[in-house]
Amino acid sequence: MTSSKKTRSVVVLGASGYTGRELARLLARHPSLELSGFLGAREGVAPDAPALPVDAPIAPLDWKAVERADGAFLCTPHAASAVLAARCLELGTKVVDLSADFRLRDAALYQRVYEHAHPAPQLLAEAVYGLTEFARERVGSARLVANPGCYPTSVQLPLKPLLDAGLLDREHVIVADCKSGASGAGKNPSERTVFGNVHENFLAYGVGTHRHAPEIQQELGLERLVFVPHLLPVFRGILSTLYVRPARGRSASDLRACLAEAYARERFVQVFAKGQPELNRVQMTNECHIAVAQAGELVVITSAIDNLLKGASGQALQNMNLMLGCAEHEGLA
Amino acid sequence: MTSSKKTRSVVVLGASGYTGRELARLLARHPSLELSGFLGAREGVAPDAPALPVDAPIAPLDWKAVERADGAFLCTPHAASAVLAARCLELGTKVVDLSADFRLRDAALYQRVYEHAHPAPQLLAEAVYGLTEFARERVGSARLVANPGCYPTSVQLPLKPLLDAGLLDREHVIVADCKSGASGAGKNPSERTVFGNVHENFLAYGVGTHRHAPEIQQELGLERLVFVPHLLPVFRGILSTLYVRPARGRSASDLRACLAEAYARERFVQVFAKGQPELNRVQMTNECHIAVAQAGELVVITSAIDNLLKGASGQALQNMNLMLGCAEHEGLA
Amino acid sequence: MTSSKKTRSVVVLGASGYTGRELARLLARHPSLELSGFLGAREGVAPDAPALPVDAPIAPLDWKAVERADGAFLCTPHAASAVLAARCLELGTKVVDLSADFRLRDAALYQRVYEHAHPAPQLLAEAVYGLTEFARERVGSARLVANPGCYPTSVQLPLKPLLDAGLLDREHVIVADCKSGASGAGKNPSERTVFGNVHENFLAYGVGTHRHAPEIQQELGLERLVFVPHLLPVFRGILSTLYVRPARGRSASDLRACLAEAYARERFVQVFAKGQPELNRVQMTNECHIAVAQAGELVVITSAIDNLLKGASGQALQNMNLMLGCAEHEGLA
Amino acid sequence: MTSSKKTRSVVVLGASGYTGRELARLLARHPSLELSGFLGAREGVAPDAPALPVDAPIAPLDWKAVERADGAFLCTPHAASAVLAARCLELGTKVVDLSADFRLRDAALYQRVYEHAHPAPQLLAEAVYGLTEFARERVGSARLVANPGCYPTSVQLPLKPLLDAGLLDREHVIVADCKSGASGAGKNPSERTVFGNVHENFLAYGVGTHRHAPEIQQELGLERLVFVPHLLPVFRGILSTLYVRPARGRSASDLRACLAEAYARERFVQVFAKGQPELNRVQMTNECHIAVAQAGELVVITSAIDNLLKGASGQALQNMNLMLGCAEHEGLA
Repeated sequence: MTSSKKTRSVVVLGASGYTGRELARLLARHPSLELSGFLGAREGVAPDAPALPVDAPIAPLDWKAVERADGAFLCTPHAASAVLAARCLELGTKVVDLSADFRLRDAALYQRVYEHAHPAPQLLAEAVYGLTEFARERVGSARLVANPGCYPTSVQLPLKPLLDAGLLDREHVIVADCKSGASGAGKNPSERTVFGNVHENFLAYGVGTHRHAPEIQQELGLERLVFVPHLLPVFRGILSTLYVRPARGRSASDLRACLAEAYARERFVQVFAKGQPELNRVQMTNECHIAVAQAGELVVITSAIDNLLKGASGQALQNMNLMLGCAEHEGLA
Repeated sequence: MTSSKKTRSVVVLGASGYTGRELARLLARHPSLELSGFLGAREGVAPDAPALPVDAPIAPLDWKAVERADGAFLCTPHAASAVLAARCLELGTKVVDLSADFRLRDAALYQRVYEHAHPAPQLLAEAVYGLTEFARERVGSARLVANPGCYPTSVQLPLKPLLDAGLLDREHVIVADCKSGASGAGKNPSERTVFGNVHENFLAYGVGTHRHAPEIQQELGLERLVFVPHLLPVFRGILSTLYVRPARGRSASDLRACLAEAYARERFVQVFAKGQPELNRVQMTNECHIAVAQAGELVVITSAIDNLLKGASGQALQNMNLMLGCAEHEGLA
Repeated sequence: MTSSKKTRSVVVLGASGYTGRELARLLARHPSLELSGFLGAREGVAPDAPALPVDAPIAPLDWKAVERADGAFLCTPHAASAVLAARCLELGTKVVDLSADFRLRDAALYQRVYEHAHPAPQLLAEAVYGLTEFARERVGSARLVANPGCYPTSVQLPLKPLLDAGLLDREHVIVADCKSGASGAGKNPSERTVFGNVHENFLAYGVGTHRHAPEIQQELGLERLVFVPHLLPVFRGILSTLYVRPARGRSASDLRACLAEAYARERFVQVFAKGQPELNRVQMTNECHIAVAQAGELVVITSAIDNLLKGASGQALQNMNLMLGCAEHEGLA
Repeated sequence: MTSSKKTRSVVVLGASGYTGRELARLLARHPSLELSGFLGAREGVAPDAPALPVDAPIAPLDWKAVERADGAFLCTPHAASAVLAARCLELGTKVVDLSADFRLRDAALYQRVYEHAHPAPQLLAEAVYGLTEFARERVGSARLVANPGCYPTSVQLPLKPLLDAGLLDREHVIVADCKSGASGAGKNPSERTVFGNVHENFLAYGVGTHRHAPEIQQELGLERLVFVPHLLPVFRGILSTLYVRPARGRSASDLRACLAEAYARERFVQVFAKGQPELNRVQMTNECHIAVAQAGELVVITSAIDNLLKGASGQALQNMNLMLGCAEHEGLA
């Protein structure tokens, strides 16, 4: 997979999960970035042997390898990520953190939501929130990027341009009814992710308590949002159904026009003139599909992404590309 | 399957679809009702031979058989059902109609929604809307029952007691984000129901235009409701997520207490003190599971049913049981 | 669930798994058997609280409750079952053991296959192998029944009448290519049963080493059988495809006629004259569907069962019914 | 998607099915081949508008566009393909035909199997059977390549080297128990492919009669093979389980070594030293994974491919690459 043309190198830390595997797949055909280390999350701990001969073997965490790399993707859980990020930056390696550790700007809010003190609060001010389409310049010059959550990506892409343009009634609570495939719950077997509890099933969870709500509210500057996630019996994908009240005198077509204009030149966001997004058209792509329809007095906006790509590893690669001077879409087209 | 103890007989018209098959399954072990005719929708038309030896054979429509029966289930499409219902009643056979033909009380509204004149408007006044838990007495003395739609059942069971008790802010638009399995789209192969378009997929449809919205609004006396259905990659089940604003001073616990009280003695409705309904716990049952949770300024109510049972054939059997003097739960426990 | 008409009582030990849950569901509508104890596998160990309000609560193992019952279903793992069975019998409670502990008649073979000494070898001679259709009399007078494995049930029902009638070439190795849904792997979350590894996936496992092979070989008196199990992305069901060479001068139609005759009066076994068994027609039933077709020089026999019913709890109930003097099909129709 | 670097152009005829869509996806990132026409199967017939804005629009069949192209992929049904192929060749455009029209070398056998006369028997002698790994040279100089069937690819890749090396007992009938995802049945909605008949289901079909059997027998020079296909509730993938008797004195390890050697330098075929192939590791790849295990007196070989890639469009692209002078793996890595 390596090639003499690959001019920069990256490592993945915490490679054993779904987002790590996804990054390995993307980097295998990236024209400029070489995956120089596919590493576990801890030094001296020999990762499990791969299940199949086709699985990429994972090496123990090796700080020399990290130091030699230009960038590091952190696919580690929150709390662990912040500690690893600090070390990477000391070694001069740029970081895209896929965990939640640098998404909330306020260490006190972080502590309330994640129930432990932030392990590296000194880095919060520097971290750039990497919703790429709205943060290119800051990402391009960042050392540390907080990769957005999967649900927050699917909610912000359709809402942000509308809020910025003043097209929504901010007095009316926005409802975000979101549905995610099971890969969003990670790779570890659990009561919640065992086949018999997901297949031919569907349920809401974390009603009123999910940790992605504060992230969305912070980024959209929006208190009045109710977010309810659901677990779909699919592996990949998030579809969010958003219920908004347009500003006085505005209708679905105004909102659609605004979004179409905002994303007209975006490679990874498509606003539909007709039809509804479907999960199976965004799976295995870095795209976000958006539709807008009137439904009585409200406007219903639907958005679909692959939670492992635009909702995680794909967007992380957009960000890393910018940080290391590659074209944003390299390895993602 | 017949037995000397079975004292009343019923026929199914339009037996070839999912709801007909479901009724055959239920009636096979019903202690009092005998299925005396499993019939197609048209006279003189020989139905297809069964696909498998285990499939119940369907006979052509035979009005003699209908006349001999005490009750008829109409599993036929709208428009066809109204014509068949009129004929059944002339022959003295009571009718539970699973189509939409007698759900809307207003023939003009019916025409707007279904885009053709009502074929039997003279019967509209007499038809009883059979949301069983709220219509026992009227169903018990009815000749003609309009069996509620699947989505409307899942939405009305949680909302009706709350609206009746004045616990909801009627000025705030209610959002009903509903998700149904593919059996709701019926048995006929189509672009929409082919495996490759349902499996590992998810999408909204009929946004702002679905025909179940007027039914819900009529029955709840509620104009301000936005209803968006979605297609789940499961076969059976509907989960509805309802976003309501409580009346001033009320919270989720008040709403939960109201529902728990309303359904305390109901065999088929369970209100959860904790946890969330899951589709795979209501599949193959006639039950509705309901949970209530606070989420910011709104209250989120989730309800789950099997769309083919409580949402169709199960509720139809509850109604027929009452019409023919059986215990309501016979054949459903 | 209790009723004054229920004249005998049973307990379930090891209630927390899929087979225990299935038995609770079946017994809830059994006309004669009362489920008087739904118990964990160990004394003094408080089982987990149920996940949902609708789940049956599990009590710690209570030997008094076992003693009062007429029969006990053991839904416990091998090794544990044998110890519990011995105790049940001492207390005068009849046992249907759903584990593998009493399926192999030879303690030495058991030790080779299960890699530990048999915990109750003194009971092996007494245990009756409960493939119900072929063991009614012995089951009816048994204290201890070994409920057959799921794969072995699906393989033996089609093969046993043919071997007994001398219609197969015993010199030609029989291939049993078997496919099971994920519930066969039990309820505990594992790398193998997590949604992401089952859904949209398929694989063979235990090739040449699965523990059900010796059971089939013992019962069919057949050394030359190759058995390969596969994991299907469905929850319930086993479909076995069997490749046999007919005895000289015999063809598929002879084999089909033999099976049709053998099962003509059986309530739970259907031999197809045309068409192929499908998993979704046997799911949630206690039935076995069988088809026979010529394919070149071999005959291909397919059989389908619900692994949790005819392959486990359903057949266990057939057996318990016989042991306690109920009609064999009670609670299963 | 087009680029000045793309030096040769290809068209797809019959673009509306799954294999056409797959080719469009592959060609979008092919470095050397430009998709210059995505065409329907008939002149003057306006194809349906795309379902979603993201679907590639299909143009009516245009022979000028075909003539300008260097190569044509025929994604059309058998019978139609042969006629189109003849016309393409007259226009000087090379053809990879994904239908069955040129797979059988004998027009009489074709007529027996497909129940109509071959529409272009004059081309049969010229057509090259494109199991790429075994036909590179002939494909490279061919005008017309018959792309192998999906099942035949999955069966031949593991068997061919073993038969060539004399490692199998040819007197012993080989059993090929094959399982395919629903995309193998094509995109048209039918009783067989509707969600309710595939999901949570599994069945054998075409037992003893499937049209892929003669293709396999012809290519392997093997009369004694029994092939039974099954329908899996997944979208993509074929897993074949093959039961063979090794030649005297040979065992599974000899067979594995032979395959490992045969495919040591192949990019798209992997022979496992341990573990079993799984569908979800070959989906969305052009790879074939193979494992070999002893099971009693037989050897069990399992092979997995993505039926739409190595089993159809991926292998078609391997072949077209060779025919047009590209590297075989371009667009497939």
